[in-house]
Amino acid sequence: MCSWPVPREPLRRVAVTGGTHGNEMSGVYLAQHWLRAPGELQRPSFSAMPVLANPAATAACRRYVDRDLNRTFTSTFLTARAHPDDPYEVKRARELNQLLGPKASGRAFDFILDLHNTTANMGTCLISESTHNVFAMHLCRHLQMQSPELPCRVLLYQVPGEESYSLYSVAKNGMGLELGPQPQGVLRADLSTRMRALVAAALDFIQLFNQGTAFPAFEMEGYRAIRGMDFPRTEAGDLAGTVHPQLQDRDFEPLRPGAPIFQMFSGEDVLYEGEATVYPVFINEAAYYEKGIAFLQTEKLTFSVPALSMLAPAPTPDP
Amino acid sequence: MCSWPVPREPLRRVAVTGGTHGNEMSGVYLAQHWLRAPGELQRPSFSAMPVLANPAATAACRRYVDRDLNRTFTSTFLTARAHPDDPYEVKRARELNQLLGPKASGRAFDFILDLHNTTANMGTCLISESTHNVFAMHLCRHLQMQSPELPCRVLLYQVPGEESYSLYSVAKNGMGLELGPQPQGVLRADLSTRMRALVAAALDFIQLFNQGTAFPAFEMEGYRAIRGMDFPRTEAGDLAGTVHPQLQDRDFEPLRPGAPIFQMFSGEDVLYEGEATVYPVFINEAAYYEKGIAFLQTEKLTFSVPALSMLAPAPTPDP
Repeated sequence: MCSWPVPREPLRRVAVTGGTHGNEMSGVYLAQHWLRAPGELQRPSFSAMPVLANPAATAACRRYVDRDLNRTFTSTFLTARAHPDDPYEVKRARELNQLLGPKASGRAFDFILDLHNTTANMGTCLISESTHNVFAMHLCRHLQMQSPELPCRVLLYQVPGEESYSLYSVAKNGMGLELGPQPQGVLRADLSTRMRALVAAALDFIQLFNQGTAFPAFEMEGYRAIRGMDFPRTEAGDLAGTVHPQLQDRDFEPLRPGAPIFQMFSGEDVLYEGEATVYPVFINEAAYYEKGIAFLQTEKLTFSVPALSMLAPAPTPDP
Repeated sequence: MCSWPVPREPLRRVAVTGGTHGNEMSGVYLAQHWLRAPGELQRPSFSAMPVLANPAATAACRRYVDRDLNRTFTSTFLTARAHPDDPYEVKRARELNQLLGPKASGRAFDFILDLHNTTANMGTCLISESTHNVFAMHLCRHLQMQSPELPCRVLLYQVPGEESYSLYSVAKNGMGLELGPQPQGVLRADLSTRMRALVAAALDFIQLFNQGTAFPAFEMEGYRAIRGMDFPRTEAGDLAGTVHPQLQDRDFEPLRPGAPIFQMFSGEDVLYEGEATVYPVFINEAAYYEKGIAFLQTEKLTFSVPALSMLAPAPTPDP
């Protein structure tokens, strides 16, 4: 199964979106900078469009005003009849769907690169929905090769059976860049420099693809989201403890059965009771407290990615 | 001049306030925990009262709802005629002034310890208004002795001529605890454990004082706030750059003339043009963007603190 066919034409309509969450400052300020100075996003075969995705949340320096924009690009929200009382982000999702989509249509943008930060110690993380997205996996590989000394992990983040709800799902293809750790509302120079270099490399990759470069097959490592794990809570629903110091900041490291995951205010430790080793990510992400997620469990996998070329012949049917 | 006379009686009415800023989570959760389990704040000679200072901001996980509560304890706000349209924090400041004050009255609490976090890399920082507060300086000294291996700096944070506006100024005496770095909305176990130990040690010090312990004179080092330094901005007032990587995370380290302080989005560095070495603090604090403060400049000083004892005789007048 592959929902993301390899593009057969050059990608001409590319967007780089920042401020989808208004307090994730690397993307906010890069998008604002590129809106003033768009030349940096130009390549010979295309010119990427910078978009400040959630201007109201950006102005308020909050993740969102009424609801999480990056969970709002589902057919339910995009196709429902508009109403003046609709939440701000529902209105904005429809505007972005008009600008960059419509989702699942031939008129949609070819690619959206969506810029995010996390308070978790995730370093450079590339978010895609599936290993089956051959174009995105080659792009990830290309980004990983830019600074081989820095970890640059691929997170596969789609819950099976769920409709895709993220901003980049509006385009024919897309990907998220997630850089951390950075507090909400803070712009660290090191992270925005890194994000800027990654965006440049992503646009370079699209340029290479557009000019007919062939990319060979390879093996890749990734982390696939399995489930969220909530904080320990009191009967009233308040936190009864927080992430254990031995788990804090250890994103992408193995968590083995029996290891401590939470430290209760009363002093005891809570141990991980799963049967298999998992690889936690988004550990103690500020925005996930309200979602009931202290960290996200992932499994580590290795998979094969076939060769990529715009001009690649369709697979020959078996004789 | 000394506005904080050494107490002549045991301190019986002590409060520990958390959530003065609703997204500084160590104090928020410690206050909520102590409200459920106040025994931890008991000592033989007194029982400290836990207070969640800004419940509405805490519920919203924001610094404040209408205005910064910790800048609202001035006579202008506290004594103005109440109006139903007053900002939430003005109403709440008046409630806290009733509960813990009234400010500058004999009925006010003896001591308030106010708990804060910063996104800056300030480690453990004790905030007082003046070196002349002999009781607070001895308390700082006591806290520094608890973990001599960890830096524990004293920040003297009152702009000369300004009326004190912080929550703890409502009591006869008080101090702030500022622990970082911690993102807004995140509860790190290491920081809340440290804060809990510092609060316990502060209460132990008050207990020692109350039972008549005499504390000898000593020399102390501190950092006195001089002025804030804003980010570089575009003509429209937007950020044109951010804190330089060579300054980021270097709170309390010397900043010498000519050293880089900002990195512009256009690529250039901005250098520090002051004539004297300063010691920046609150470097890249999320909450200070809106205040126009990229960091606060301080000067380092060494000063003498006289001996302290509840029973110390009044100084003998010169013959």
